[in-house]
Amino acid sequence: MKIAIYPGTFDPITNGHLDILDRAVKLFDKVIITIARNPSKDPLFSEEERLDMIREAVKHYSNVEVDSFEGLLVEYARSKKASAIVRGLRAISDFEYELQMALMNRKLDGTVETVFLMPNEKYTYLNSSIVREISRYGGDVSEFVPPMVRVSLDREKRMKKST
Amino acid sequence: MKIAIYPGTFDPITNGHLDILDRAVKLFDKVIITIARNPSKDPLFSEEERLDMIREAVKHYSNVEVDSFEGLLVEYARSKKASAIVRGLRAISDFEYELQMALMNRKLDGTVETVFLMPNEKYTYLNSSIVREISRYGGDVSEFVPPMVRVSLDREKRMKKST
Amino acid sequence: MKIAIYPGTFDPITNGHLDILDRAVKLFDKVIITIARNPSKDPLFSEEERLDMIREAVKHYSNVEVDSFEGLLVEYARSKKASAIVRGLRAISDFEYELQMALMNRKLDGTVETVFLMPNEKYTYLNSSIVREISRYGGDVSEFVPPMVRVSLDREKRMKKST
Amino acid sequence: MKIAIYPGTFDPITNGHLDILDRAVKLFDKVIITIARNPSKDPLFSEEERLDMIREAVKHYSNVEVDSFEGLLVEYARSKKASAIVRGLRAISDFEYELQMALMNRKLDGTVETVFLMPNEKYTYLNSSIVREISRYGGDVSEFVPPMVRVSLDREKRMKKST
Amino acid sequence: MKIAIYPGTFDPITNGHLDILDRAVKLFDKVIITIARNPSKDPLFSEEERLDMIREAVKHYSNVEVDSFEGLLVEYARSKKASAIVRGLRAISDFEYELQMALMNRKLDGTVETVFLMPNEKYTYLNSSIVREISRYGGDVSEFVPPMVRVSLDREKRMKKST
Amino acid sequence: MKIAIYPGTFDPITNGHLDILDRAVKLFDKVIITIARNPSKDPLFSEEERLDMIREAVKHYSNVEVDSFEGLLVEYARSKKASAIVRGLRAISDFEYELQMALMNRKLDGTVETVFLMPNEKYTYLNSSIVREISRYGGDVSEFVPPMVRVSLDREKRMKKST
Repeated sequence: MKIAIYPGTFDPITNGHLDILDRAVKLFDKVIITIARNPSKDPLFSEEERLDMIREAVKHYSNVEVDSFEGLLVEYARSKKASAIVRGLRAISDFEYELQMALMNRKLDGTVETVFLMPNEKYTYLNSSIVREISRYGGDVSEFVPPMVRVSLDREKRMKKST
Repeated sequence: MKIAIYPGTFDPITNGHLDILDRAVKLFDKVIITIARNPSKDPLFSEEERLDMIREAVKHYSNVEVDSFEGLLVEYARSKKASAIVRGLRAISDFEYELQMALMNRKLDGTVETVFLMPNEKYTYLNSSIVREISRYGGDVSEFVPPMVRVSLDREKRMKKST
Repeated sequence: MKIAIYPGTFDPITNGHLDILDRAVKLFDKVIITIARNPSKDPLFSEEERLDMIREAVKHYSNVEVDSFEGLLVEYARSKKASAIVRGLRAISDFEYELQMALMNRKLDGTVETVFLMPNEKYTYLNSSIVREISRYGGDVSEFVPPMVRVSLDREKRMKKST
Repeated sequence: MKIAIYPGTFDPITNGHLDILDRAVKLFDKVIITIARNPSKDPLFSEEERLDMIREAVKHYSNVEVDSFEGLLVEYARSKKASAIVRGLRAISDFEYELQMALMNRKLDGTVETVFLMPNEKYTYLNSSIVREISRYGGDVSEFVPPMVRVSLDREKRMKKST
Repeated sequence: MKIAIYPGTFDPITNGHLDILDRAVKLFDKVIITIARNPSKDPLFSEEERLDMIREAVKHYSNVEVDSFEGLLVEYARSKKASAIVRGLRAISDFEYELQMALMNRKLDGTVETVFLMPNEKYTYLNSSIVREISRYGGDVSEFVPPMVRVSLDREKRMKKST
Repeated sequence: MKIAIYPGTFDPITNGHLDILDRAVKLFDKVIITIARNPSKDPLFSEEERLDMIREAVKHYSNVEVDSFEGLLVEYARSKKASAIVRGLRAISDFEYELQMALMNRKLDGTVETVFLMPNEKYTYLNSSIVREISRYGGDVSEFVPPMVRVSLDREKRMKKST
């Protein structure tokens, strides 16, 4: 059985992430979408909130597992018996950072391969940070994120205002 | 069974191509490495010579098939029941052309996914055209191509000289 | 009255070109879409065929003129009293070439400004050469070009076969 | 009347910004240069100081308005009846970020078009942050900014020292 | 005598930096590797620790000097009578930033030339920040840094844990 | 004595090439500017014409030698006892090709180092092919090339017309 890991911060998960996940699901027997915990980052949503949003968005897949981890990605992949790490490629700036990470991961563990997939071109320039920014200024993000994420962004905004 | 296509001109096949093939072989149940015939190109080696060099270089794999085709890649992939097209990503210039082709292929047939793999960094800047150029000027290409290709390049050079 | 020039080879015109033209039409009082004749290129369609296809595709605009020219773009722009040259920006490789041409044109005539517009993201990776290639191999190009261009590409293909 | 918005942080305004503004002024009937307030950024100059520096630098134009705003750029543009957003394109890193913002703005409001202009090549690698850094270390910035900005940077430096 | 400056943050020095230094040493009569003090950055290692690690790593060169400075690089270079600044070029993102800095330095002092060298391709994607990250998560960095740096990173990690 | 090679096609030599040469001259004791003969290219100017134009343009340097060669650059460099190959870096597209060539040359001979220099930003987008194109269409190239090259381009143009 070929297992793939799809790691990210997912703060929050977007339709672009889900597009990549959907492609990975067709190529591998099982895909583990997993939040990389990073103590030095200060996310908008807590780990638990992010996990909930992902679980809701992927519940129609039978071969997708939702998880989180801390530490080296390759060690996590090994513990999950994964043969591949899935990453989306959208723009040049992605490209260089992703290749750097992939090469480093390969040096740390040569048995897990990084596989790059391309999202639908309508998600080419979509990322979590621009979604957070549009939402903060009251823009409509329903084209960019699954429904539950839109609801969570709206709630977050109201809480900010009331404080 | 997950089948992948690895298409190219392979004029000639290099160690960079073989590095990508080796990674694909671990991810898929079967990989078909296939020469895309292009009537408007004038290759150094004939299709038959290129097929022979590939066959020699991949003979130790049990799940690799060697083939050639003309026409639309996605139609070829469909006829082979492939779920993926494998491409190597080395440099920015690759990146843009490869994404363009992948998007076009996806538009023409949404069921076959393009999967990008990254070669070992020692092949980052290697391609068939630079191998042909080094060989033409008498440089040593044994680090860049499998043995049979080196022999063929040497023979080619001697034939050029004698005419 | 602000006049803009939209120059290109248009061999053939694609929906990506028409998307850029449509944006330019809203920004300028008049747009001249013009074929740059290049004696050293060997186009698939004759200049007259390309002009016909453009005229058909833009006939619903009242402020678009169709033309062709040979020589320096800036001299042509001056003769048309244009204040801007319109160019589409899709990818990095475009970007550098376009900036080079824009800088050179500015050095040759500082009074005409190059204005870059971005096509709809669904045309990000579309260009005339890939359309010709898909058509040659029998692929369906109706998503990429206006109807008359599709008809012309089909006719071209039948003529190739019958010879 | 065609109105364009030229938004930015302008912390401080540089000769590169003024070069782009000068090109926009020739293409549009009116240009509104506007500071995008960003609560999460900590600028060197206050909004009022930045507005003063811009006002001084653009006072010789009759069709330039100076303003500031908070919130979504497209909503601001709509409130100003602008048909275009003007952005300068200098380098590859600009290019990707600018295209991302332009695409997002287009999704949020399809009626306002982002127009990219290219500064004089002598400003290719100039930006506000490098100007602040050179000034902090006592370098001469008079080639990069208008006179009043140079004076303000010097004053800022003396204040830092005296504290 | 041709003197070159090799400036950086070196937090910590990596085998990639040492590869560039080794190339510079062969081209110039003397190379000064120098830490650029930046009050607004918060490095992992103190200046003194970084200087110690560099001194240990370069002690086998007779024509390398180790130093640190604050302020404008070109003024430092002038005070050292250097005719060149050495920089390594690995990736596109480097490329743009490095050209920007080189152009600015040239404007500030036209007598010192920036010289770009390319590291061995095995260091293409190596930088100090990725080394710090791998070390923090317990990964093995011995392939990426000289021995003393590995020891210092391990000590740093133990101190973090014990607090 | 440090010797550098500055290789190119120089069809024709431009002010951008001369800008790079001038920087190299200050860094090395001797610079050999040399035409790489390429039998598969069809240059506008003959090798002898190109050598004449270069000789005229560099005659005021005492430490510049003008030459031409065929074959592998690294073998030529070795025969000239050069320790460096000088290349100009202007744009991203240069960057990738230049790094590829530099890496290949290093693999073929590790003793000669490729050194990248950056031209004045006013030559960022200048190259020989654009100069030939502007001249062919009657544009003024006197800002881009030395006087003798302008004269040669004019003569070439008159000859084309009279045939």
